[in-house]
Amino acid sequence: MVVILKEQYNQAQLDNLVDWLKSMEIEIHFSEGMKHTILGLVGDTSSVDIDLIKALDIVEEVKRIQEPYKNANRKFHPADTEVVIDSAQGISIGNGSFQLIAGPCSVESEEQICAVAESVKKSGATILRGGAFKPRTSPYAFQGLRGDGIRLLLEAKKLTGMPIVSEIMDISQLSLFADVDVIQVGARNMQNFELLKELGHSRKPILLKRGLANTLQELLMSAEYIMAGGNDNVILCERGIRTFETYTRNTLDISAIPALKAMTHLPVIIDPSHATGISRMVMPMSLAATAAGADGLIIEVHNDPAHALCDGPQSLTPEGFAEVADAVRNILPYSHGRMAK
Amino acid sequence: MVVILKEQYNQAQLDNLVDWLKSMEIEIHFSEGMKHTILGLVGDTSSVDIDLIKALDIVEEVKRIQEPYKNANRKFHPADTEVVIDSAQGISIGNGSFQLIAGPCSVESEEQICAVAESVKKSGATILRGGAFKPRTSPYAFQGLRGDGIRLLLEAKKLTGMPIVSEIMDISQLSLFADVDVIQVGARNMQNFELLKELGHSRKPILLKRGLANTLQELLMSAEYIMAGGNDNVILCERGIRTFETYTRNTLDISAIPALKAMTHLPVIIDPSHATGISRMVMPMSLAATAAGADGLIIEVHNDPAHALCDGPQSLTPEGFAEVADAVRNILPYSHGRMAK
Amino acid sequence: MVVILKEQYNQAQLDNLVDWLKSMEIEIHFSEGMKHTILGLVGDTSSVDIDLIKALDIVEEVKRIQEPYKNANRKFHPADTEVVIDSAQGISIGNGSFQLIAGPCSVESEEQICAVAESVKKSGATILRGGAFKPRTSPYAFQGLRGDGIRLLLEAKKLTGMPIVSEIMDISQLSLFADVDVIQVGARNMQNFELLKELGHSRKPILLKRGLANTLQELLMSAEYIMAGGNDNVILCERGIRTFETYTRNTLDISAIPALKAMTHLPVIIDPSHATGISRMVMPMSLAATAAGADGLIIEVHNDPAHALCDGPQSLTPEGFAEVADAVRNILPYSHGRMAK
Amino acid sequence: MVVILKEQYNQAQLDNLVDWLKSMEIEIHFSEGMKHTILGLVGDTSSVDIDLIKALDIVEEVKRIQEPYKNANRKFHPADTEVVIDSAQGISIGNGSFQLIAGPCSVESEEQICAVAESVKKSGATILRGGAFKPRTSPYAFQGLRGDGIRLLLEAKKLTGMPIVSEIMDISQLSLFADVDVIQVGARNMQNFELLKELGHSRKPILLKRGLANTLQELLMSAEYIMAGGNDNVILCERGIRTFETYTRNTLDISAIPALKAMTHLPVIIDPSHATGISRMVMPMSLAATAAGADGLIIEVHNDPAHALCDGPQSLTPEGFAEVADAVRNILPYSHGRMAK
Repeated sequence: MVVILKEQYNQAQLDNLVDWLKSMEIEIHFSEGMKHTILGLVGDTSSVDIDLIKALDIVEEVKRIQEPYKNANRKFHPADTEVVIDSAQGISIGNGSFQLIAGPCSVESEEQICAVAESVKKSGATILRGGAFKPRTSPYAFQGLRGDGIRLLLEAKKLTGMPIVSEIMDISQLSLFADVDVIQVGARNMQNFELLKELGHSRKPILLKRGLANTLQELLMSAEYIMAGGNDNVILCERGIRTFETYTRNTLDISAIPALKAMTHLPVIIDPSHATGISRMVMPMSLAATAAGADGLIIEVHNDPAHALCDGPQSLTPEGFAEVADAVRNILPYSHGRMAK
Repeated sequence: MVVILKEQYNQAQLDNLVDWLKSMEIEIHFSEGMKHTILGLVGDTSSVDIDLIKALDIVEEVKRIQEPYKNANRKFHPADTEVVIDSAQGISIGNGSFQLIAGPCSVESEEQICAVAESVKKSGATILRGGAFKPRTSPYAFQGLRGDGIRLLLEAKKLTGMPIVSEIMDISQLSLFADVDVIQVGARNMQNFELLKELGHSRKPILLKRGLANTLQELLMSAEYIMAGGNDNVILCERGIRTFETYTRNTLDISAIPALKAMTHLPVIIDPSHATGISRMVMPMSLAATAAGADGLIIEVHNDPAHALCDGPQSLTPEGFAEVADAVRNILPYSHGRMAK
Repeated sequence: MVVILKEQYNQAQLDNLVDWLKSMEIEIHFSEGMKHTILGLVGDTSSVDIDLIKALDIVEEVKRIQEPYKNANRKFHPADTEVVIDSAQGISIGNGSFQLIAGPCSVESEEQICAVAESVKKSGATILRGGAFKPRTSPYAFQGLRGDGIRLLLEAKKLTGMPIVSEIMDISQLSLFADVDVIQVGARNMQNFELLKELGHSRKPILLKRGLANTLQELLMSAEYIMAGGNDNVILCERGIRTFETYTRNTLDISAIPALKAMTHLPVIIDPSHATGISRMVMPMSLAATAAGADGLIIEVHNDPAHALCDGPQSLTPEGFAEVADAVRNILPYSHGRMAK
Repeated sequence: MVVILKEQYNQAQLDNLVDWLKSMEIEIHFSEGMKHTILGLVGDTSSVDIDLIKALDIVEEVKRIQEPYKNANRKFHPADTEVVIDSAQGISIGNGSFQLIAGPCSVESEEQICAVAESVKKSGATILRGGAFKPRTSPYAFQGLRGDGIRLLLEAKKLTGMPIVSEIMDISQLSLFADVDVIQVGARNMQNFELLKELGHSRKPILLKRGLANTLQELLMSAEYIMAGGNDNVILCERGIRTFETYTRNTLDISAIPALKAMTHLPVIIDPSHATGISRMVMPMSLAATAAGADGLIIEVHNDPAHALCDGPQSLTPEGFAEVADAVRNILPYSHGRMAK
């Protein structure tokens, strides 16, 4: 971290700052320029609050050189992390392992979730997704089957052998997720820090979605909350960010893939269904994500389009999903291994 | 709600839609245009998911006429809500009652919180703020004194008689807030729906902060979550939104005040400290907020600038706060009562 | 266009509105609902200003059903447009024709532009780009070689036979572009309407870049300005939009490709260099754009990395460009033809 | 400017950089830290392109300490600039002089513009605004009376004695503005650099509007383009920025007033009409802007609400404007002089 002092500064305040930094075991290297004195801070500055230093009267500017994330930082862990989902079946994500995750937006019935599970498995999906707890903008909208939804997902898992991923919305729901293979933290909870801390004490894989208006560094800081608790099994997921564009529901940030690949060793998957909100855009965005080096895709699939009033416009039919899976498989060999880190 | 069908549509799918709408006790009024058939939906459409209807193959466009919030909607409750904070002392917010809320970013010690409380009370603050649970982007940053912080706030309340407001971050902390007068939901938790539902079962005043990238309608939908549970004591707070501007930490949306006053009957207060992140901007933005019709201000004040390394650059000294309080009092008579609803 | 009247409305004002609409040859279809009267407007509503109607006291809401762009609208021109760049050489963009456009950010010298042109041609680029007029945020930054830059580009064209594309910044520069094959309108001039009108009188291909904070509909409205003048040779270019992310310079909106393909018949190309601002991200984003169905790529290439202080961090070396060109060629057969319109 | 080198760097490339910086008469101060070498650049770094330096392989980070604007910078010109609009009548903006600018969105007829001019003058407006050249998103929308509109404005000026302000859209229109007192550059032309350069050769006051997605520093860089040409008569105008909020047309950034007052000596005015797009919000936002220290307001007023179909929903009636003018006058003494620089 580099701190640039104002041209005129109060020596007592500088002494104050120096004492405080030393108390955090930061070494300070002074450099007197023509106009400005520059302080180079050496040591573990990840716990130094850059805003607090900026706030001081004597400080002109502060510039962080080291990233504030450690466990998630590729600089300190150059090798790709591979998160194991099901070791018996050899299903993992990252470090060259690519997985297709598919399933309905909401779990509605045993019949529905089992039918979708069997069909997407046939097309090549290896992990089943399904929402039991649904974060909805309106308190009057369907909030999911909750505990019952988890139970139905476990039935589908028993039937098909597919590991399952579902979203948690509050710490109090954690006990229900004992047999869920991957716990998803939704975009709106990306900075629910108490929840992240709790998940840090688990050893389950966590699928962490980027918030709608969050930077990649903020996403990594949230991953860091989980990893700081000892849980390194974090899968990052880009699912669209809020922009001024209204044609799509959100804007899928495909460049997040190579950017995150450079910043971190954690695997990165893409959710083209929620990002676009339009089923016919799932194909091109799945291909784009694969070509850009994603470690997996999480795609919404419903089973009965004629009656599926509760499935969003972003859901594919099983046939549509099969086409996407085929196309992704074709393009995969031409994309991987080309990406610079 | 108005649903515009595509030029060519499948009659079976339309029947399907009509049945589903009727099952929700929505009446449907058909209108055959030259090219498009239009469906006017009459009844309580607040629980109809607009995205689901948009998703249907037969639908060209959907337009909501009624707002999706009911309890918070001024149309159904034309009179201003006045949230009572302390009936014995006659402290309330809204419907013409304006309050200054002041205190430190973080509670640090009994000495600190009591000193700040006494000084801001002298200058005209009527409610004490102080953070015990601190949402921090980094897991390595100070996370607040937590339970001890709440205890110290209660000491300051006992000393000064000031009601207190502090932020909750998780449902599990709720029991600690039994004697806290106003529970704050922070910007990052504005869409922590499980927490909002739980607070709906309380009868305490809730200070609900707008999320950094949320619309006013989304803010009102979150208020609706609380009100749907039976708790009408919601105070809305604008605290800056994320924009491309980097000079200020966030951009304080002053126009949210008259906009919310038209949309809802709930009181609206402004947080100029967090919004700007710059102490010298607290004065002009406090005056602007007051002139635009805010029902109160929540302002950060620290007690000892020389050592206050943990106070952000946005904090005023007690003297600075006294000046702001004076200026706000002067401008107040010239602003209120002029605003169109 | 559907106009929803307020529950109570003034009949005289409605008559006023009806007269005005009829004067524009719009037919009006009335539909009396339970609470709201709905007006369906039939005819060419592209010249009806939606904001003006919204402004009327008697109007609750207005919803456009038809898009406000006509010439650019795929509904009225279902077949893909193919913009011919050089008919003798058979170089065109769109309708299945994919082109690589490459060259330096700024034209610096005859030696430089000719060397880059020869090397990128060898790797498969078919069109040469080079900036002569440079829009710079700072008046103190290098503003380009201007007329001399155009002259040097024409030298490189003569040498290599490659058609050239360069950016215009003002109508007054138009005469210098007589022998330039494709005129580029930069992101900051996307809504320079006087310039767009002037280019509508030309018959040259126009490469129109999307503004940094503009929607796709606004981009198409700017294309419409050019096409309304009679020039249908418009190539759309996505070059990154402004978001809160700071890792990349802008955020490349890959989903703009399938979105625009559905909205319009015009070709769509991608500029991964400016969008990311990082040379090592050009490869993954080029592959992603190709996989998503782009009709071409425009890529920055400089010739002498050791001395190229004036080439941005987004520029590839000729060798780097050759690798990208190869990878794009490999992936192209697996992406095209799969996109839904 | 501070340049932080990577831990390992190529000495030849560093020498290259040093030579280039010295060629621009920048002095370089080296400081060897534990891990990083830091270069402090001393001299006029406003012409050093920060992006170019960031692009170098050997550079980890670059931090500008000095702002890139000089003529507009308050550091170098501490005293407020007062832009004289009409010296005979003593009408100026800035340095304590506050003006109300009012008039219709578009000039429509001599009768209209003269009637509005007389009525707003009576209420205290001192400068008349009126659009002759109208930037419209759609080529099919009314584009203004153009040259005839300017002629009608000059008629109203002759009648009332009010100086006039109108928007220019292209250099080619400049001769028509010979008798216009203040030339407005619209938000969409804020970075039309060729136009800005041309206006730098004029000595007329320029009213420069902030772009919809531009930062305050970018606004000042555009002012710098005008000032670099020798024209210091620049009035800055905040007119709303693009955010995710849809209730208002744009979001009026009131905090831009104290921010700009700290950054620059130029006067700052506010346009509450375009920013909100809603006439009943003009009053509260005018009061807020005045309270926050604006040097003036530019407000849309139309004359005949019953027939004014072409006036946007943001326009006040003359009576509405009179009320706003009164309220602003009342609040003005309580706001000015309190703002920290």
